[in-house]
Amino acid sequence: MGEVLFLNGEIMPLSEGKVSVEDRGFLFADGIYEVIRNYKGRPFTLEEHLERLERSAAGLMLELPYSREELKAICLDLLKRSGLEDSYFYIEVTRGAARRTHPFPEQARPTVVVFIRAMATPDPKIRREGVKVITLPDERWACCHLKTVSLLPNVLASEKARRAGAMEALLYSPERILYEGSSSNAYLIEDNTLHTHPLTNKVLPGITRQVVLEVAGQIGLQVMEEPRTVEDFKAADEVFITSCTREIYPVVQMDDAKIAGGKVGPWVQKLHAAFLERVAAECGLASAY
Amino acid sequence: MGEVLFLNGEIMPLSEGKVSVEDRGFLFADGIYEVIRNYKGRPFTLEEHLERLERSAAGLMLELPYSREELKAICLDLLKRSGLEDSYFYIEVTRGAARRTHPFPEQARPTVVVFIRAMATPDPKIRREGVKVITLPDERWACCHLKTVSLLPNVLASEKARRAGAMEALLYSPERILYEGSSSNAYLIEDNTLHTHPLTNKVLPGITRQVVLEVAGQIGLQVMEEPRTVEDFKAADEVFITSCTREIYPVVQMDDAKIAGGKVGPWVQKLHAAFLERVAAECGLASAY
Repeated sequence: MGEVLFLNGEIMPLSEGKVSVEDRGFLFADGIYEVIRNYKGRPFTLEEHLERLERSAAGLMLELPYSREELKAICLDLLKRSGLEDSYFYIEVTRGAARRTHPFPEQARPTVVVFIRAMATPDPKIRREGVKVITLPDERWACCHLKTVSLLPNVLASEKARRAGAMEALLYSPERILYEGSSSNAYLIEDNTLHTHPLTNKVLPGITRQVVLEVAGQIGLQVMEEPRTVEDFKAADEVFITSCTREIYPVVQMDDAKIAGGKVGPWVQKLHAAFLERVAAECGLASAY
Repeated sequence: MGEVLFLNGEIMPLSEGKVSVEDRGFLFADGIYEVIRNYKGRPFTLEEHLERLERSAAGLMLELPYSREELKAICLDLLKRSGLEDSYFYIEVTRGAARRTHPFPEQARPTVVVFIRAMATPDPKIRREGVKVITLPDERWACCHLKTVSLLPNVLASEKARRAGAMEALLYSPERILYEGSSSNAYLIEDNTLHTHPLTNKVLPGITRQVVLEVAGQIGLQVMEEPRTVEDFKAADEVFITSCTREIYPVVQMDDAKIAGGKVGPWVQKLHAAFLERVAAECGLASAY
């Protein structure tokens, strides 16, 4: 069936999915979301994503209308109906449709959108050659640890990256502390140690981030969660970004600075191989791709 | 016909209006909006609101699919069809529906929503007795001068106000500079001078704000646009907030502090009377209410 949508209890082709113009997701960005990857038809870290969805909901004082088990069943049902193998789930829950007024409505029932879409395996060229990123001042709000659809600052930053011929925009504080990307977490490696920003309100607690930090320890990389500057990143041995859909992308250029001479480094390659092994093991597959 | 909706060129009852679940307004808060008041069937400052919509669009690098004259014609057509007198227009323009990816889509056509809804004249009790507000740290993003639907921080602040029994939350910087409310501009009066925050990236260039500043001059109030602290507000002779739908609301309590002994002051009353005269004059009415 291809791209299938669950919308408030009904199943339909994604292209037919519509919500009210008075949905608070559309009027106020009053909602949360998750993106979850399926490898060869097996969801990866579905449990962890649903657990984060619950934390985002709590942060918005939004009561999820389905339990974790129910959401899991909805996802697995879509997977089966779709017939898709390499794919992802997109889940969005908003505070629902109600007469427009800023405070929470008394009557609205949350809108629940879950859809599945095919996803190509990322181009291996990216793993071999790395990507370019730009850096921008962080213009986002104070609660970036919640995965909400209030994403306009992220959209504008990633469009600026695209126009600069870059894959991602990494965002920094007034003190030039690099927090993360517009849709990724960011890391540097120096002296066989992996550094990434600690989990504060300015950083999304990435599920891929969590897996990468675990895998890093297994392959002999030390892990330090501490703030580092843009300049630290540009001078590092290796730099990379992670997200659910990208897994691990080596960064070989930041703004005009080449990282490690513009070549993909050995640790990032080892990390990605170990990451894929972890995916395969968790999904019960001989290999992730 | 009551509440009428214009949606991408089609006219329908508001309750039938639906947008794609892949609309970027719903997925990314990638859109802008305006609220415009009609007094006895006459739009007030429609031109100014449409001009601000154009500025917000430019700030988002979003090309409006309709000219100002076309949008005006759409509004006036809805007004006529609705048969409504005291009412407001809500206009929202998003970057349209497209396959989900952060940077701007290449193909999407913007989604244009314009609806009209009846609006009761504000309760005169509020003018006589004033309202309570709370103050909160500003958690919004860096571009509050653009009127975008990325409103989740505003929603959460106004819900906190509601739960505290207050009408509005006023937002302050780490240095306790008071910027504005979650959906209003904020002012204090001391020594026959009106003070409000200058137009920076942290303050919406309110259309009502502009009218109020003009009217203030006409009734003999000096106007100073400069940053003032929460403490300055609490110690002021009078405090008020403005927005398109509220016009001018006197504030008699901020957090636990009574303003001017908890009574509505004389300047706010004069300002509101002068504001209504301005409305009547511009709309060609004998009186605004």
